Amino acid sequence: MASVSALRQLSFGHLVSTEQVSREDMLAIFSVAQEMELVLQSGGMDLLQGKILASLFFEPSTRTRLSFETAMQRLGGEIITADGIQFSSLYKGESIEDMIRVVSGYADVICMRHPEEGSAEKAAAASVVPFLNAGDGPGQHPTQGLLDVYTIQKECGRLDHIHIAVVGDLLYGRTVHSVSVLLSHFSGVRFTLISPPELRMPRKIVGMFDERGIAYTETEQLEVGLSADVIYMTRIQQERFEDKSEYERLKGSYVLHADHLQGKKSVVMHPLPRVDEIDPSVDTLPHAAYFRQSANGVPVRMALLAMMLS
Amino acid sequence: MASVSALRQLSFGHLVSTEQVSREDMLAIFSVAQEMELVLQSGGMDLLQGKILASLFFEPSTRTRLSFETAMQRLGGEIITADGIQFSSLYKGESIEDMIRVVSGYADVICMRHPEEGSAEKAAAASVVPFLNAGDGPGQHPTQGLLDVYTIQKECGRLDHIHIAVVGDLLYGRTVHSVSVLLSHFSGVRFTLISPPELRMPRKIVGMFDERGIAYTETEQLEVGLSADVIYMTRIQQERFEDKSEYERLKGSYVLHADHLQGKKSVVMHPLPRVDEIDPSVDTLPHAAYFRQSANGVPVRMALLAMMLS
Amino acid sequence: MASVSALRQLSFGHLVSTEQVSREDMLAIFSVAQEMELVLQSGGMDLLQGKILASLFFEPSTRTRLSFETAMQRLGGEIITADGIQFSSLYKGESIEDMIRVVSGYADVICMRHPEEGSAEKAAAASVVPFLNAGDGPGQHPTQGLLDVYTIQKECGRLDHIHIAVVGDLLYGRTVHSVSVLLSHFSGVRFTLISPPELRMPRKIVGMFDERGIAYTETEQLEVGLSADVIYMTRIQQERFEDKSEYERLKGSYVLHADHLQGKKSVVMHPLPRVDEIDPSVDTLPHAAYFRQSANGVPVRMALLAMMLS
Repeated sequence: MASVSALRQLSFGHLVSTEQVSREDMLAIFSVAQEMELVLQSGGMDLLQGKILASLFFEPSTRTRLSFETAMQRLGGEIITADGIQFSSLYKGESIEDMIRVVSGYADVICMRHPEEGSAEKAAAASVVPFLNAGDGPGQHPTQGLLDVYTIQKECGRLDHIHIAVVGDLLYGRTVHSVSVLLSHFSGVRFTLISPPELRMPRKIVGMFDERGIAYTETEQLEVGLSADVIYMTRIQQERFEDKSEYERLKGSYVLHADHLQGKKSVVMHPLPRVDEIDPSVDTLPHAAYFRQSANGVPVRMALLAMMLS
Repeated sequence: MASVSALRQLSFGHLVSTEQVSREDMLAIFSVAQEMELVLQSGGMDLLQGKILASLFFEPSTRTRLSFETAMQRLGGEIITADGIQFSSLYKGESIEDMIRVVSGYADVICMRHPEEGSAEKAAAASVVPFLNAGDGPGQHPTQGLLDVYTIQKECGRLDHIHIAVVGDLLYGRTVHSVSVLLSHFSGVRFTLISPPELRMPRKIVGMFDERGIAYTETEQLEVGLSADVIYMTRIQQERFEDKSEYERLKGSYVLHADHLQGKKSVVMHPLPRVDEIDPSVDTLPHAAYFRQSANGVPVRMALLAMMLS
Repeated sequence: MASVSALRQLSFGHLVSTEQVSREDMLAIFSVAQEMELVLQSGGMDLLQGKILASLFFEPSTRTRLSFETAMQRLGGEIITADGIQFSSLYKGESIEDMIRVVSGYADVICMRHPEEGSAEKAAAASVVPFLNAGDGPGQHPTQGLLDVYTIQKECGRLDHIHIAVVGDLLYGRTVHSVSVLLSHFSGVRFTLISPPELRMPRKIVGMFDERGIAYTETEQLEVGLSADVIYMTRIQQERFEDKSEYERLKGSYVLHADHLQGKKSVVMHPLPRVDEIDPSVDTLPHAAYFRQSANGVPVRMALLAMMLS
């Protein structure tokens, strides 16, 4: 069985929002995640043997749920799972706080996905064991942000002086906000923000860039971002547009093809699932990092679980 | 790894109903449950390593399901789970007996929740491995009754000469019936039965009190029960009343507040989930035992699994 | 902990269809399955410790899912599960290939049930870890076919010179097709095909019998098959008939009773669930092999998992 180095204390006991995570936290988490990749190659470890993760999903997010459950089991831990619609209807009338207090009596750590913004904060306050937010509605999804930044570090070999182009729905894209907040802790980071005018990055995030002295450009042209170190694609959903003809006009503009990447070294990322915003012609190129990115969720979540439970 | 004392034989092979459980069974189960609390503190044990619990929920009851699954895993066992609506529709047309025979071929022990009264008895008859009823409709929920009585023993330090006030819907409250049947095995137990007239304790239970020489008082006044050793609160559901104005008039009468408990030493219990029948002002008082009660489900179910599989 | 003999290489890396499975594969799988029965008696083994099975069910099939999950856990492995309607809706718009690529990043082996014929082939092509088809719509269900043939071997003591009567819906019965394809690899096998004219065995299967020199008779009379070594019963579903009176006329004709088996040594099999096509009077007879057949799914799937992961 593999082992890992002494685990540093994180600055947080519960992980609710991306804003809680300092540069030091990230570096510590990524260093453990790197060790976890070796653990994975050697067939797992028994660091969390006898520990139970409660995986509470009040809305379906199978990808995130399976990633957490894999991480826990690769560390030798066990899982109890509640998933889907019947679960949320069960607790009709019961407060999130009561539910979390009860589950705290079963498990050693809890991760929760919930459709309501702010639910994770309430849950963390009620939990007597470490709590991880696995997405609360349009709010936060900090573990996704962490695996995204870890992927950038792995693919580019650094986090300082990264030029990242983020493409698509920057207004509602929760993952885009998380990665922006986390990356802005590093020096010389530069953003190219590529979206239709209706879906520009929220002024709150842009204001944070200004405060932290982060350079950024806003544009509607995908082509402007193709030389970035990282091209982070996201989906544009039809339901965001009142004027459907506007959607039809736009949607083709934000589709990445293999042709776009000729002669470039950009790393292409996507939080998945994709629909058609990355053409399958990209899949076989070395640029295509999105499946590696998704797999990185496991060592990053292993690192978080190990550090929060140690 | 922790270990436990030699496990006594229980008087039953399957646990279907509260009526099967003798005073001796209870004392034996609670003694093992107490040891299981030490096992939990020491990080679990491997008594049931290689054993599988099939957790079959034909209606959602996430709380009970997670409690069973936690108990099994804390003992080193594994779980297979079937849960929710899609499951019951799958077996449309198939008998419960056939389904249980099949699952008996996979697992070493089965727990089942089913909406139909009597389904647990059918299932137990068909099972070739130990079977536990995790609730069959309005019928039985014996493991809940056992964890309730275990909680009384832990909180009060005894089971003889307990004065318990049970409050709310005594007519349909399955847990209230279970705890009444189980407690009536002990000496000098006294019940104060507090409910609206429409929701009085069934005459069958009251008749059993008479037979066993158990003292009881029936009243509509919450205040009458506030000096009991245990105040066991339950929810009054609006759908029980034909006359909604009667419900509106009543519901405020059965809400417990911190003020009610001033100068009292009563232990407050509730099977959970609660809606508003216990005011959050009670939560921080030492009287509030309901979250401890819920957590007690784990050692009690560990004891049952260990004893029924040994 | 038990151990097994050196595991032979199978002729396939992914198991998508019954047609992939050679006679040699079957004999190797059944030999390991036999050893797995001893492993099961001795309480499991740790051959796949640290390995994870992803169990992806895009339509409910609790029986098959629990059998796979049991098999994995009896080998010391772990499981991650996605099940039911909410799961399929989640991936709306995402390709099966993308989903499998992602899950390949979590698990060491994948089994999948999906309502669309051909989905298993797509999934296997995208998977970077061994993949097992757990049923794709009206298409294939190879592990069911394997456990059926394994049952015949166990119950009859041989696979050559078997006379099997298959009864019921031979047109749409996926399991009947699988068992026919697999059994036709053995010498001197003889089929009695018993069905209403509307539900006769597809000409494609019958053509394969002709090619391989397999003897068969087609009949509408259940009685013709009662002396076979194996009577394989299947359900006739009302929805297969345009003319409901035709269904009413027929359904009684294909119900097996204890009386039918007097003085016979036939082994009665059924893929389950049954509705009323085998009368409960058969259940207690030694002929009734259907619950043993269902239990055989565990050692057969253990053998497949062990061999495909070794």
